[in-house]
Amino acid sequence: MINVAVDAMGGDNAPTELVKGAAEAVEMRNDLKVFLVGREEVIKKELTSYTYPTKQIEIVDAKEIIETAEPPVMAIRKKKNSSMVEGLHLVKKGICDAFVSAGSSGAILVGGQVIVGRLKGVERAPLAPLIPTNKGVSLLIDCGANVDARAPHLVQFAKIGSIYMEEVVGKKNPTVAIVNIGAEEDKGNLLVKEAYPLLKNCEDIHFIGNIEAREIPKGMADIIVCEAFVGNVILKLYEGLGDTLIQKIKTGMMSTFRSKLGALLAKPALKETLKDFDVTKYGGAPLLGLNGLVVKTHGNSKAVEVKNAIIQCVSFKEQKMNEKIKEKIC
Amino acid sequence: MINVAVDAMGGDNAPTELVKGAAEAVEMRNDLKVFLVGREEVIKKELTSYTYPTKQIEIVDAKEIIETAEPPVMAIRKKKNSSMVEGLHLVKKGICDAFVSAGSSGAILVGGQVIVGRLKGVERAPLAPLIPTNKGVSLLIDCGANVDARAPHLVQFAKIGSIYMEEVVGKKNPTVAIVNIGAEEDKGNLLVKEAYPLLKNCEDIHFIGNIEAREIPKGMADIIVCEAFVGNVILKLYEGLGDTLIQKIKTGMMSTFRSKLGALLAKPALKETLKDFDVTKYGGAPLLGLNGLVVKTHGNSKAVEVKNAIIQCVSFKEQKMNEKIKEKIC
Repeated sequence: MINVAVDAMGGDNAPTELVKGAAEAVEMRNDLKVFLVGREEVIKKELTSYTYPTKQIEIVDAKEIIETAEPPVMAIRKKKNSSMVEGLHLVKKGICDAFVSAGSSGAILVGGQVIVGRLKGVERAPLAPLIPTNKGVSLLIDCGANVDARAPHLVQFAKIGSIYMEEVVGKKNPTVAIVNIGAEEDKGNLLVKEAYPLLKNCEDIHFIGNIEAREIPKGMADIIVCEAFVGNVILKLYEGLGDTLIQKIKTGMMSTFRSKLGALLAKPALKETLKDFDVTKYGGAPLLGLNGLVVKTHGNSKAVEVKNAIIQCVSFKEQKMNEKIKEKIC
Repeated sequence: MINVAVDAMGGDNAPTELVKGAAEAVEMRNDLKVFLVGREEVIKKELTSYTYPTKQIEIVDAKEIIETAEPPVMAIRKKKNSSMVEGLHLVKKGICDAFVSAGSSGAILVGGQVIVGRLKGVERAPLAPLIPTNKGVSLLIDCGANVDARAPHLVQFAKIGSIYMEEVVGKKNPTVAIVNIGAEEDKGNLLVKEAYPLLKNCEDIHFIGNIEAREIPKGMADIIVCEAFVGNVILKLYEGLGDTLIQKIKTGMMSTFRSKLGALLAKPALKETLKDFDVTKYGGAPLLGLNGLVVKTHGNSKAVEVKNAIIQCVSFKEQKMNEKIKEKIC
């Protein structure tokens, strides 16, 4: 049995979509048990809307909720009975293999490291979302709160990311590139100049050199290694620019009678194509290198993304990801 | 008379579009003289295609060309008779007020600082392109080669950028924000944490705090301050993601008969709207804080962008930008 704790109270669509996602996930796998953590009476009521194998969902009562605006460190420390802290403790205690939350990113990052803790030998736990590209998806590692990483951390990120892409995402012999401001080997800031030769000499990965940000959406590498500040900028600009461009396109299409008619005809096909490029669709960003798995789903996740994140936890466990990380890193 | 040197041999469309842009620019202003720098016979031949006030264009012969792939420092040092080095020397000697090139970015950044030189008191010369947003344009400063800047440099960038946005772009009381990974004051890496209070206490600018990358395309600040590595990632991702999304949209629209018909109808309106969001349209990125002005236009600039860049140099001179920078910075 694989046990996954889900923060039923975190995110814009909590608890409805979280509970629904859990009910859908247990329908898919009979070796999966979901622990819905949050206000018992609320979750109970939500669950009455679904038919599902009842033995595969358990409610864990937690009265408090950590809000997105709260300072993360303080929230994790003070709100001992919050759905997030309780959920993370289920992993810490070994009752659950993984924890999924759509709540405060900051609190998840802090809580994951402080409560669940890092695998021995892992120096930083990177947050690694999948981002859409022209060729499929790439793993962006690190987008976490661990800013000002040092070069050896980037090498660990590359190794951990390679294992994840190969074992969980199923990409054979995935390529690794480091984000830089030019394609040449001698380009970059101090961090990248120091990390480049370390990556080049690392035998466990398939390093292909520098990647300029313009090449990322083209899918020129499977694993995009960067320091967390840069990763955060890339991830958020991906979201913001996508939204703005799609908004622009909608405005453009609604500007004349002729274009409105065109929009009506093109809409279904266009929607289908653009769906692939929605960052939130790949919303399950794992915080890797912990004693267990912690997955951050997008704040506005719907049931389908929650279900995907839970199933992702199952693959992670099945593939013995942490055993493999320990083997390569520690 | 305002004198502008133009690198006739730099960029993907050299010399044709560069020469054409120069001919168009001198048609617009009779107080402007353009010095076309490059192979005399080639430029002469190109010029025969246009009618223009002949006294307002002068050819400066330069036999060599710096290629984009060349290591910048070496290229500037070795190719003394290249169009770029000769053009930069025209500014250095005071013969020209400004230099425009669509050639190698690296060589322009190096050459601008080494040959033209920085204004006394300016510690780093930032490259500051305008990027399209939902509300118009924002100035992204710095996107240059000066990676690993320190906090006081960012404050200078904010000041110089504010003067440029107000005087040349014409935005009254422009707002300044610093790129960060959260909206709260205490977020960020060491550099941003150090720069934030300095920016907050700087009286010459209208500082509004942090900006997350997701808010940049929404036009939430007029001047986006960041270290060059981050700026480069933002600029290049802007280009790359825009291209990829537009490619996706085209594919989507061509996928069914119905959508093809829709595309045909919507295309003119869509094209018009997306034009505003083309980074290359705002291709004239000034390298600020030098003893003169150096403008880098996009490598694939057409005549219209070259003309715009030249006219931008006229505004820069008319607005006495450098006098104003000296006043505030030095």
